Amino acid sequence: MSSYQSIVSEAMTLAQEAFEIYQKVSGKKRAEFLVAIAEEIESLRDALVATAHQETNLPFPRLNGEIGRTTGQLKMFAQLVAEGSWVEATIDSPNAERVPPKPDTRKMLVPIGPVVVFGASNFPFAFSTAGGDTASALASGSSVVIKGHSAHARTSELVFSAIQKAIKRCGLHPQTVQHLLGAGAEVGRALILHPNTTAVGFTGSQAGGKALQSYAQQREIPIPIYAEMSSINPVVLFPETLTLNAASLAKTFAGSITLGMGQFCTKPGLLFAIESEGLSSFMAYLQTEISQAPLHKMLHLGIAKAYNTAVETMVQQAGVGVVTNTRTSDDEQTPFPTIAKVSSKAFIANPTLHEEAFGPYALIVVCEDKNDLANTLKNLKGQLTATLMATDDDIKNYQEIVALQTSLAGRVILNAPPTGVEVTASMVHGGAYPSTFDAKYTSVGTSAIKRWVKPICLQGFRDWMLPDELKNDNPLKIWRIVDNVFQQ
Amino acid sequence: MSSYQSIVSEAMTLAQEAFEIYQKVSGKKRAEFLVAIAEEIESLRDALVATAHQETNLPFPRLNGEIGRTTGQLKMFAQLVAEGSWVEATIDSPNAERVPPKPDTRKMLVPIGPVVVFGASNFPFAFSTAGGDTASALASGSSVVIKGHSAHARTSELVFSAIQKAIKRCGLHPQTVQHLLGAGAEVGRALILHPNTTAVGFTGSQAGGKALQSYAQQREIPIPIYAEMSSINPVVLFPETLTLNAASLAKTFAGSITLGMGQFCTKPGLLFAIESEGLSSFMAYLQTEISQAPLHKMLHLGIAKAYNTAVETMVQQAGVGVVTNTRTSDDEQTPFPTIAKVSSKAFIANPTLHEEAFGPYALIVVCEDKNDLANTLKNLKGQLTATLMATDDDIKNYQEIVALQTSLAGRVILNAPPTGVEVTASMVHGGAYPSTFDAKYTSVGTSAIKRWVKPICLQGFRDWMLPDELKNDNPLKIWRIVDNVFQQ
Repeated sequence: MSSYQSIVSEAMTLAQEAFEIYQKVSGKKRAEFLVAIAEEIESLRDALVATAHQETNLPFPRLNGEIGRTTGQLKMFAQLVAEGSWVEATIDSPNAERVPPKPDTRKMLVPIGPVVVFGASNFPFAFSTAGGDTASALASGSSVVIKGHSAHARTSELVFSAIQKAIKRCGLHPQTVQHLLGAGAEVGRALILHPNTTAVGFTGSQAGGKALQSYAQQREIPIPIYAEMSSINPVVLFPETLTLNAASLAKTFAGSITLGMGQFCTKPGLLFAIESEGLSSFMAYLQTEISQAPLHKMLHLGIAKAYNTAVETMVQQAGVGVVTNTRTSDDEQTPFPTIAKVSSKAFIANPTLHEEAFGPYALIVVCEDKNDLANTLKNLKGQLTATLMATDDDIKNYQEIVALQTSLAGRVILNAPPTGVEVTASMVHGGAYPSTFDAKYTSVGTSAIKRWVKPICLQGFRDWMLPDELKNDNPLKIWRIVDNVFQQ
Repeated sequence: MSSYQSIVSEAMTLAQEAFEIYQKVSGKKRAEFLVAIAEEIESLRDALVATAHQETNLPFPRLNGEIGRTTGQLKMFAQLVAEGSWVEATIDSPNAERVPPKPDTRKMLVPIGPVVVFGASNFPFAFSTAGGDTASALASGSSVVIKGHSAHARTSELVFSAIQKAIKRCGLHPQTVQHLLGAGAEVGRALILHPNTTAVGFTGSQAGGKALQSYAQQREIPIPIYAEMSSINPVVLFPETLTLNAASLAKTFAGSITLGMGQFCTKPGLLFAIESEGLSSFMAYLQTEISQAPLHKMLHLGIAKAYNTAVETMVQQAGVGVVTNTRTSDDEQTPFPTIAKVSSKAFIANPTLHEEAFGPYALIVVCEDKNDLANTLKNLKGQLTATLMATDDDIKNYQEIVALQTSLAGRVILNAPPTGVEVTASMVHGGAYPSTFDAKYTSVGTSAIKRWVKPICLQGFRDWMLPDELKNDNPLKIWRIVDNVFQQ
């Protein structure tokens, strides 16, 4: 057994041991733990921001905001599990008169077991060590083994030190959360192949997600890989709004495309519109706006180089023209925001143009008319988001386009850019392949907890044997479905 | 393109066309359709029972009961979608004061697309053409393509004729439900590989389920295979109850093992107990009870032969003794109920003994003590059910055993046999691999609808653009989560 295999094996053995204890910890106590993690992170804020800035080049205000988002998520899941109704407790009463007699059956969601979380490169806090995957898994009652991202290893270790303090404060099993580092695919592969692993959370590239999925398919017992991979986030700019609002649309999308140097899975990468004067003036405004966008270094040199290569490839494709390619920096880690354009015909014919280019790049696809626009959208794959920039009349006049956009993505947005993902109960940050492997789940918002649970039905149990969630007198006062009626 | 490929291609093209219309049909109208199917099946009851008896050898009372279960399921899903709260509507209000402004986000479950359902051999009605998979998929708003089981092809066609009448009565797209027959794996493979297929429901053998999964893994865009495959349904007979109730336990389990000639996925196939006088007398009683069990032909000759081969294999394994093997029939399609026994040591050492033998067979695993029983249970894989036959004191004294059984299965039963699956909101007919591929889902009960849906988030939509489920004034009066509060 090589050294990384024995490290993984030991971690997963301890994760199982910790799970057997942690799964019995009450929702209220889990909530205290999540709040304690948030507090310990807050107390390290200055060191965290400084370290993350060194490792990722992300600006201070962004990193400060991301810490707020991270602690906010932890507190949101704390509220969810302290309240407790999320377990979907469902009770059907027995009926001894029926032939055959109807038994007493009660159902609730329970944690599945040790979960492995892979940190993302582009969110050193909110989608990493104590990010949404970890927070939702701990809320569910699962133990967690984190594979920290090597691009911000010191930040990850610092966040983990906050988690460890919270574990001590709350008197939990010391291995309720564990943290592994290590570049290369070996540690990740060993984590996925270990029999104690029951599910995986991942945010990253399509190649990375597919690799994890291929490891999972080598297992005897299959496990889900909840991977949030790639999305080009199609935006339709409808005719009337283009005529009326070309300048403000350009301002909005220049901001959205260059925000955080385009290093968001929700960056709008494709803009669809019907050829018109409105579109021409939108492109002219966009050129100006993009040229004024503030720039900063990308996460690391590798990402910057990959961006340059991707953009060069895109603009060399048949029929692709450059709208703007703002060369304003001599620093090789700072990207040139680039907008290209192409006809719908050339777009449909060329799969390369359907790929994500991670960075401040977008492609405008110029369609001939309504039918051509519909036909073009039919060629798109699953997406995290789909955006409609439209007046009320646009919506009324283009129902087929609205339906097509709605069928593509987990989140459909009217008149706002897709960047900016609210952390709420109604959020869906997920979508059909290749944006994720399973359109049923979200990695943001309270529903993210559903990835780490399974239902269990207890039949004929006496009241004293039941967990509190399912006892007759509902001691937790949670919302339940009793004989098909919602009640508290 | 071979003939079956063109048949499948045409069916899936029409299924997509029908889906685009059917997904917009209201819950109330879908409910009318489900009730119409139930009524049309009821009006064919006599012909259905006669045909199914000819094709499956199942007794008339069982077939009549199964029709009742089937129409009951259809009506249960009708109630669910007529009421409407099942879509998990969730609303978060906007806040323009916040920096940045918080958008209006609203979420609900929507159907995923055309679904393929494979009929099961052992339930010609309840898990076949108009069974739980079809009923739940139609309730969700998905169109359905049924691959009828060749072992009861005429029954399947007759049930489909009832569905067709209901489609006409309700004025739905004629291909909302389609029906294909054809032996061999080719039609099934083509159905799974077709790009329009979005999910698959299957009840059958482990080999069958694994084959479908291997086809799904050849797709560019992955789809879930909801396969309910195999389960040996471990039962623990605890010491005190064995001492007090050996005779009645024997009667209960003789009935459960031989019911329907053991052709149930919930047949108890493994009985665990600690060596004791109680266990010896249980075995003696069981021998008598089994010898008196009424017998009938199995579903078809192939299944009867497979059963005989499986039992011969089992009793020839090292350390296996025969408790009873009742040879009471000369008919080669009628099985000999067989009970075998083995030590825990021999059981743990031999994977063959952990396999399902489809038919009236069970293996008693004799353990030395509490620790040995716990250690033996740790060797089991995922199950549909796990049963505890226990007094209150047994439960108190054997907490580790209770926890182990609870971790194994989707349904844990106290003091009743696992055969008999209630069709209720709190049922879980599912479990960890190899009982299914995904422990998150059930194929029985109202939650079965969750297999055919995905969440969608609509951001910033105006009220008139929203589906009724998400409109401000809640016109459907469904239960929703609004700003994290359950309300109607």
